[in-house]
Amino acid sequence: MDVRPVGLVNSARTEPLDDDWDAVAAKISLDPQQFTAEAVLGLRDFSHIEVVYLFDRVAPDSVQTGARHPRGNRAWPRVGIFAQRAKGRPNRLGVSICELLAVDELTLTVRGLDAIDGTPVLDVKPYMAEFAPRGSVRQPAWSHELMAGYWGSL
Amino acid sequence: MDVRPVGLVNSARTEPLDDDWDAVAAKISLDPQQFTAEAVLGLRDFSHIEVVYLFDRVAPDSVQTGARHPRGNRAWPRVGIFAQRAKGRPNRLGVSICELLAVDELTLTVRGLDAIDGTPVLDVKPYMAEFAPRGSVRQPAWSHELMAGYWGSL
Repeated sequence: MDVRPVGLVNSARTEPLDDDWDAVAAKISLDPQQFTAEAVLGLRDFSHIEVVYLFDRVAPDSVQTGARHPRGNRAWPRVGIFAQRAKGRPNRLGVSICELLAVDELTLTVRGLDAIDGTPVLDVKPYMAEFAPRGSVRQPAWSHELMAGYWGSL
Repeated sequence: MDVRPVGLVNSARTEPLDDDWDAVAAKISLDPQQFTAEAVLGLRDFSHIEVVYLFDRVAPDSVQTGARHPRGNRAWPRVGIFAQRAKGRPNRLGVSICELLAVDELTLTVRGLDAIDGTPVLDVKPYMAEFAPRGSVRQPAWSHELMAGYWGSL
């Protein structure tokens, strides 16, 4: 099945660093060939958006299908590709929630989008609190350690 | 760009009803041609997963690119396709967080997956609390009204 980017990320970050993403200014430019400002009508009433994007700088032949240590760190357990959020994954899809700062025609200004400059955007959805997990969340210690500096500096 | 399903949804729900998704029992069967149990090693340490899937029953020519009333309800404002989570959207991608009840080889038993039987799954990610929105969430009244019965009965 085919997917077609709906826009592109313009970001101050051009390399896939691991951490400190909330400090990175970015914009999403939606494709004027496909959309008018009608496509984002009312979006500004939401404080956050969910962005689906493609890790296009990952070579298809480096996609993992088995298990590995997250970030190659042997202090953390080997876990399957579907038990981690690494970019080298089947279909190379990223999903992330970021703050929406402004909407100007087809340009969305955001904060905390963990995608580098030039990343193809496949979808933008409004974040609704009702889409948070129902029930209490449990996750392993390694995932908290990995995420400790992800959005902000340690 | 091409995407290839990593698995399929097996759900008790075969029609795209609007509400009451948390009552629906479902499984995700990952593709044994592509994966072994290594792909989900450690996944059971997470209480919730995020699932990316394709709204494959939406005909490509019925995809919306502009604005419309959510669910056709004129009591709610017209909003752009990127300001709502309707299924008839560019690239027809769904993203949802559900509870993970069990992992048995390549079969994931879940609760609260809002995808009908036979839906192609494009990715499974572990849910980490750190991927929740940073900062307080704001959203319009219509979205709360729309979501009121989405997961549970009113």
